[in-house]
Amino acid sequence: MKSEIISVGTELLLGDVINTNAAYLSLQLQDLGIDCFYHTVVGDNQTRIHETLKLALTRSNLIIITGGLGPTYDDITRESVAEVLELPLEFDQNACNRITEIFRLSNRVMTDNNRRQAYKPKGSTFLPNDRGTAPGILIEVGEKKLVLLPGPPEELKQMFEMSLIPILKGYQEEVLVSKHVNLFGIGESQVEAILRDEMVQYTNPTLAPYANLDTMYLRISAKARNKEQAEALIEPVLKDVLNRFKPYVYGVDVLSMEAALVETLQKRELKIATSESCTGGLLSERITRINGSSNVFELGVVSYSDEIKNSVLGVSQALLDTHTSYSLEVVESMCRGLMKLVNADIYVAISGIAGPNGGSITQPIGTVYVCVIYRGEVVTQVLNLGRKYRNDRDRIRLLASTHAMKMVLDLIDR
Amino acid sequence: MKSEIISVGTELLLGDVINTNAAYLSLQLQDLGIDCFYHTVVGDNQTRIHETLKLALTRSNLIIITGGLGPTYDDITRESVAEVLELPLEFDQNACNRITEIFRLSNRVMTDNNRRQAYKPKGSTFLPNDRGTAPGILIEVGEKKLVLLPGPPEELKQMFEMSLIPILKGYQEEVLVSKHVNLFGIGESQVEAILRDEMVQYTNPTLAPYANLDTMYLRISAKARNKEQAEALIEPVLKDVLNRFKPYVYGVDVLSMEAALVETLQKRELKIATSESCTGGLLSERITRINGSSNVFELGVVSYSDEIKNSVLGVSQALLDTHTSYSLEVVESMCRGLMKLVNADIYVAISGIAGPNGGSITQPIGTVYVCVIYRGEVVTQVLNLGRKYRNDRDRIRLLASTHAMKMVLDLIDR
Repeated sequence: MKSEIISVGTELLLGDVINTNAAYLSLQLQDLGIDCFYHTVVGDNQTRIHETLKLALTRSNLIIITGGLGPTYDDITRESVAEVLELPLEFDQNACNRITEIFRLSNRVMTDNNRRQAYKPKGSTFLPNDRGTAPGILIEVGEKKLVLLPGPPEELKQMFEMSLIPILKGYQEEVLVSKHVNLFGIGESQVEAILRDEMVQYTNPTLAPYANLDTMYLRISAKARNKEQAEALIEPVLKDVLNRFKPYVYGVDVLSMEAALVETLQKRELKIATSESCTGGLLSERITRINGSSNVFELGVVSYSDEIKNSVLGVSQALLDTHTSYSLEVVESMCRGLMKLVNADIYVAISGIAGPNGGSITQPIGTVYVCVIYRGEVVTQVLNLGRKYRNDRDRIRLLASTHAMKMVLDLIDR
Repeated sequence: MKSEIISVGTELLLGDVINTNAAYLSLQLQDLGIDCFYHTVVGDNQTRIHETLKLALTRSNLIIITGGLGPTYDDITRESVAEVLELPLEFDQNACNRITEIFRLSNRVMTDNNRRQAYKPKGSTFLPNDRGTAPGILIEVGEKKLVLLPGPPEELKQMFEMSLIPILKGYQEEVLVSKHVNLFGIGESQVEAILRDEMVQYTNPTLAPYANLDTMYLRISAKARNKEQAEALIEPVLKDVLNRFKPYVYGVDVLSMEAALVETLQKRELKIATSESCTGGLLSERITRINGSSNVFELGVVSYSDEIKNSVLGVSQALLDTHTSYSLEVVESMCRGLMKLVNADIYVAISGIAGPNGGSITQPIGTVYVCVIYRGEVVTQVLNLGRKYRNDRDRIRLLASTHAMKMVLDLIDR
């Protein structure tokens, strides 16, 4: 099945909104095994919406259109699609009642414009919207399927996952199942070099590496008549990959390094405390971003200056004078300072040069020192992140915090 | 001048990369006063790139094409554009020398594939790339201008700002100048309601509100023969807007609340210390994200549990028992605890319920307590962020930290 995504909205063409909907939908389509060949963004303009739709109908069987279902005068997707397909719009009393009820519950006044959202092209089906007033619409005209989804991402996602996935699966003769092996500390190109033969030869399952901002993952996807058969195809490849990339694996189907860390800490009933210099709280922020982290996160200290490292964490002035705060000695001392402040299982300290200023020939920008202490065992590491990330402050801070979390996971697992 | 953006890359169609380049370029085009009517994403496929380009040439004068300039076999943008325009590719020895030099400097081996990056369509101009090997290309064929930019965002941005803006300005008869008034604590729709008449009536300058994730801004844009004339048109409107929205303004042409805060603290030579519960270090992380924040940021304490609030910040157990950590009494006590730990000018404390768990009828999810102390003056505030942000943990944490920073700015300015 060939698909394409049309996003309607002048705000996208003005650059005021980033088109995350198209990326989200593409990921979903990929998971369903549906090919997507085009994304188009078009403004709230009737002529251009018409032209874009007509073109899409010549080349795709599944057309997903997002945005322009709202109540205001510039929301014209519903009408435009009906015109191009030459279908009259029909009023749906049930949909109207639902919209009326939403307004009643939130004590807002319903306008005539909102009544427009209760119309759909003849013969089409409404998709319920649990998070807003605009229902989605599914139109099936012979081989062509058109889906209209609301623009707000949380409404679109909920509708896609609740209503559309079962329908789209019904269009497919086979199911596609994927496993994602999450890796850190190895580059996409290195993985590609190691797995080149398998990536070329394998057709079912397929094997492909993808890079995130701070980590990467290997996707193993299999098509089969049902989920069990697909999983059976994936299993031996998954085993092989996990074995070959063991030092770099931090999870399977995990959303992020912090999610993997919090899950592991929860399972093992371990508590963590952090002290951060150059990452400025990013490590504690990433850990506490995860729901449920309050059970595992004890204390975070952001100690930017030498004075604070001394007065709050008890790093001795002599140590700071001898080694400077950019040293393994000082990060270890920061960890030991934490141990005096709080009773946790794991202590982490990060200090280094995030740039864009600072740095020297012996300690260039991106030099970051990390120490982890777990049950008396001390592990330290010097990271050199500057060259690889072109002295980008944000990337250096991000990678330093990810590295620290991977060090914690490795030490716990040892 | 009508423009459109074509992004080439299968990774975009797979949803593995979000098309931030198109949003960035659209914002830039908007600033230049160039209309953009379409974004298209197409994979690394010759036939589909050809079709997309041919269609674009029928409807736009300026076509910006991103991605597919890399060295690997699936990077075919350069060749595809040359084929559609029926221009032969010519080798450029200077460009080749530059690429050779980049490889020599980084001790990497240059392959024949990299030599391909030294070719450009006959009669076109290279745009230098200071951050990578692939130069950009500008092709002018009569009325039609085509620009090829590399896909990596940092290379694309640098090239656009250094090389392309002057060229694009040369295509325009008038300059467009914009001022952005940064607002917080007022919604886009409220601003629209207040300024509806002006927004409709004004044609030069124009006035439009835009929402960010946690703040919003009003854009005032004027077209004129030169910058000075445009600025003169903007000035009275800017003055009026600043006056009418005074309580909500946190800057003009400022990138973010944290940038505004750090700039103000630097100017006033003030130091800040933070203690965070539900935001988990997000406030300190946002402040230290800004280059130069080391001069103004003293200490951050992430105190998630009552024990830590007691042992590290000295919040008394009696206070915690009486009021719980979700109270103005406790955030004030957290601030006073900071005062004992460190000598700063401003002390901030945040505690509350970020969700998705926790919360009660009297203190629903999104109830957040903030205290700021500056030179003996204490300001506290209870925020109710749950309903507005649908109990979204990330949004509640973000907004709580933004609110705290605005409270600091307001208190300093009082």
